[in-house]
Amino acid sequence: MVFGSTAEGVYNLYALNLSKGETFKITKEPPHLYAKTSRISPYVVYTLDVSKGFELVKLYAINLNTLELVDVSREVPPQRVVGVGFDGVRVAWSGSTKEAAGIYLTKVPDGEPELIAKTKGREFVTDVSGNYIVGFGHLRDNPYSMEIFVIDLKSNEFKVVTPKEGSTNTSPRIKDNDVFFVSDFKTLDKERLYSFNVSSEEFKDVTFESSDLIAYDPTEIVNYGWSDAGELWVIGKRDGRTKLFLNGREIPTPKGFITDADLYEGKAYIAFSSLKEPPKIASVDLTSGEVKVVIDNKLPEEISKKFGEVLFVRFRSFDGLEIPTYVLKNAEVSAPGPTVIYPHGGPWSEVADSWSSFIAALTVLGYHVVAPNFRGSTGYGESFRKLDLGDPGGGDLLDVVYARDWAVKAGIAREDSVCIVGYSYGGYMTFIAMTKYPDLWRCGVAGAGVTDWREDYELADAYFKKFDEILFAGKLELFEERSPITYVENTKAPICIIHPQNDSRCPLKPVMKFAFKLMELGKPFELHVVPEIGHAISLDNKSLLKFFIYTGMFLKKHLT
Amino acid sequence: MVFGSTAEGVYNLYALNLSKGETFKITKEPPHLYAKTSRISPYVVYTLDVSKGFELVKLYAINLNTLELVDVSREVPPQRVVGVGFDGVRVAWSGSTKEAAGIYLTKVPDGEPELIAKTKGREFVTDVSGNYIVGFGHLRDNPYSMEIFVIDLKSNEFKVVTPKEGSTNTSPRIKDNDVFFVSDFKTLDKERLYSFNVSSEEFKDVTFESSDLIAYDPTEIVNYGWSDAGELWVIGKRDGRTKLFLNGREIPTPKGFITDADLYEGKAYIAFSSLKEPPKIASVDLTSGEVKVVIDNKLPEEISKKFGEVLFVRFRSFDGLEIPTYVLKNAEVSAPGPTVIYPHGGPWSEVADSWSSFIAALTVLGYHVVAPNFRGSTGYGESFRKLDLGDPGGGDLLDVVYARDWAVKAGIAREDSVCIVGYSYGGYMTFIAMTKYPDLWRCGVAGAGVTDWREDYELADAYFKKFDEILFAGKLELFEERSPITYVENTKAPICIIHPQNDSRCPLKPVMKFAFKLMELGKPFELHVVPEIGHAISLDNKSLLKFFIYTGMFLKKHLT
Repeated sequence: MVFGSTAEGVYNLYALNLSKGETFKITKEPPHLYAKTSRISPYVVYTLDVSKGFELVKLYAINLNTLELVDVSREVPPQRVVGVGFDGVRVAWSGSTKEAAGIYLTKVPDGEPELIAKTKGREFVTDVSGNYIVGFGHLRDNPYSMEIFVIDLKSNEFKVVTPKEGSTNTSPRIKDNDVFFVSDFKTLDKERLYSFNVSSEEFKDVTFESSDLIAYDPTEIVNYGWSDAGELWVIGKRDGRTKLFLNGREIPTPKGFITDADLYEGKAYIAFSSLKEPPKIASVDLTSGEVKVVIDNKLPEEISKKFGEVLFVRFRSFDGLEIPTYVLKNAEVSAPGPTVIYPHGGPWSEVADSWSSFIAALTVLGYHVVAPNFRGSTGYGESFRKLDLGDPGGGDLLDVVYARDWAVKAGIAREDSVCIVGYSYGGYMTFIAMTKYPDLWRCGVAGAGVTDWREDYELADAYFKKFDEILFAGKLELFEERSPITYVENTKAPICIIHPQNDSRCPLKPVMKFAFKLMELGKPFELHVVPEIGHAISLDNKSLLKFFIYTGMFLKKHLT
Repeated sequence: MVFGSTAEGVYNLYALNLSKGETFKITKEPPHLYAKTSRISPYVVYTLDVSKGFELVKLYAINLNTLELVDVSREVPPQRVVGVGFDGVRVAWSGSTKEAAGIYLTKVPDGEPELIAKTKGREFVTDVSGNYIVGFGHLRDNPYSMEIFVIDLKSNEFKVVTPKEGSTNTSPRIKDNDVFFVSDFKTLDKERLYSFNVSSEEFKDVTFESSDLIAYDPTEIVNYGWSDAGELWVIGKRDGRTKLFLNGREIPTPKGFITDADLYEGKAYIAFSSLKEPPKIASVDLTSGEVKVVIDNKLPEEISKKFGEVLFVRFRSFDGLEIPTYVLKNAEVSAPGPTVIYPHGGPWSEVADSWSSFIAALTVLGYHVVAPNFRGSTGYGESFRKLDLGDPGGGDLLDVVYARDWAVKAGIAREDSVCIVGYSYGGYMTFIAMTKYPDLWRCGVAGAGVTDWREDYELADAYFKKFDEILFAGKLELFEERSPITYVENTKAPICIIHPQNDSRCPLKPVMKFAFKLMELGKPFELHVVPEIGHAISLDNKSLLKFFIYTGMFLKKHLT
């Protein structure tokens, strides 16, 4: 079992030998992505940034027996890689540069990579096996749907597959001649597993011996896979928490969030966490149900004692829409008390009952944290997720504003002590909330955010150009209206801007311009440019620590 | 006795009742300047920034008996005030705005301020008494000389007084009908006390009963004054250390630096410090010589144990000139080891054997600190000080470069582990050293520095316009050649820029432009804008602490 960890300060891959229970470190630098491993190969395939954080990566394979490292991407120039599949012999991936995007195939360890298909930038390879490479993406150029693609390696034909036009289909994996995938085409706003037979072009429901999974009625399928014996395991999710199922039968797991599982000799090995517990690896005995922590991650008592109640609530936003929201209270701070509204990144992401170093740190710093899953968040069905398409910084922003109101009315936040802190899309939310609703916040911390969609778009590579087009549902004429720089004069409360120097997702340049404008306007601001790292600040504990130190010192001054 | 202290986190004035030995706090916000107190008045007169660090101040007087606070400057708009005199009844001061500069007079507590003279911006009022206001400045518009001015309050005549054209004359104080002052006109590069009789226009040497002071042969007179009995005390300085004299006789004081003295009931109360000891107040019994610490300032053992040897050396620079230099070694770090070259601010200032929170912090962070008093520094005679007039970033920069070479040859610095850290003019030195000599430094930290003399000049008020004109000796055409922005492409090593948002001496704007350029060039840099404070970062412990945290985290990464 391979897992990522920052246990030694920097995110690295580790291998856990499930027979011997021994762990050893595989990588020396933080990888970006890694492919599912294969029982038949000693290689672990992963991507490594070769651009100081700009997220231009090369692919590498490391032999777990010899720790010999192979450059898999070879002559292919460094790219943004967003999907990797590995069948033990072949590696397939989708990558993009500023100029082009494509899908590549090679053999491990010493094949020559071959360009299999030219693509548009947001196609995610998920698997390669037998005659096929599969993946998914917005293949109809429709921001409101996602389709599966199947590439026949005999003909290099790139086939777009969807059980129903307009539905959302993701996470395909190949099992013999079938392509399994996750879809909401039959059950609106609920994901189920289906299979597609490439020869017969027939779609089938995936059925299970036990009815536990159906009874659980998951909103999302987080992950799935097969045991060596061919049994299908599924991680389902509802309201930010997960359950694990084997052949449809529920395997008892701790309350919280499981991201991955591996079945081996009568045990399920799971990676799990919660808002109050950092990620651990545990084994669940499939017979007795006994849960044993295999790799622990204990917080010091002086930290964990600050974590108070976890609430999951739904409040009504401006238009009556219910906004599912997680709250982590500080156990040592009275309520109502100083509170941070934390809009998550993405926007197609969510705050679940899973570990978030941002939320944990903000709580430990002495605040209640309210994390609304504003419209556009994942986890609550595709209708909800699609609500911000063509409307970023619109309804989702109002949801964040209403989260503040709710927190005050609920007796969590003290009216005059509410701050907004976010990273990435959450940094954008912070900028736009502080410029469009300047009177609501005592202060704000915008990490790696967006201040100018137009300039971000111009600076973006194929992948992020496509991202912006999807997010705005093609309405690029909204760029100015939805950009914080347009409203910079309105800024009132002190704002702390923290930005990685080499951020290729949310580039530094427009943010520097925003800060320059704040300076010229004489607005109170604090600016920190964190050098030589990219957007993915969590890969490096030292950089993340810097973020928390700057944030902590700033909040300590302005939010009491 | 009134003294300033950051004992409670923020610089404030405190009063020490010399009879009772009791101390109490006078001010609630950090004052900028305060006038010498008068035995006949309960008022303490000081200036207070009303511009969030932009150094536009108002004058206030506080009654030590009632703690009643009076706005002394009244209708006079907030200005940069650079000199204040107080005779117990009247307050005189020199101030400037972007538009104009002048000398003002009022009565405490309830006079109406009157503009006594229009000036050019760099005139320093030092005293008011009887019929006169006195001060000094570059009154001939000659950057190479300083003259005394005497304003006759009957006629408002502004008289420029100098014992010899081209000499440097400073610190006038009125005693009866005589104006005492410090001058080098007879003893080149050595300061002595003289008096000038305003009626007879006669100059006289000030003579003493004891010959100790003459034998000590001070380079500078740091301060002087009279006891209630009319005895003259003088603090003399040589090579960065001071001695105290009463009527010319040496009073034994600890090794280090005394900035001020007050004589009361057979004791001299002194404010003293050294590179290893933060400022304290002590009493010296004039009969027994016994020294007692009255207000202590003890460092924790885990801090003080890091302070190693203090060296005072002179090394030869590029042209053979001897550069006096203080070194504070870290006791726990081997030599040669990682070393910081610390060019001081000013440039008309020096590193002496007196407390410097910058040097102390850099040492505690784990480095040897080498602080060259490059040409242009005070403390070594006027010829030496004037060497950088018309040549900033020229010879002085080479002295800093040679300090690095010396430190390596002396076995203090490890060749590949030398960094440069400076604040204000030292920040300028850091920028220019890292752009003109990019291969010499592992990294650098530039605090509140200058990147573009031209833009600084355009943004400056009357005082700092004059400052730049004097520093460049009128050769403003050198601005581009001596500006770091001109060489920004050369930057190689990582640079950490820390700048106060509201700095009115070294404005943020050109520094933001420099950072923007670094960003565009893809150079490794870290940027911190510290909000809502001005140039004088030491006034606020929290801001100073931020400076050291940013510096410490940066150096920890780059300087090992």
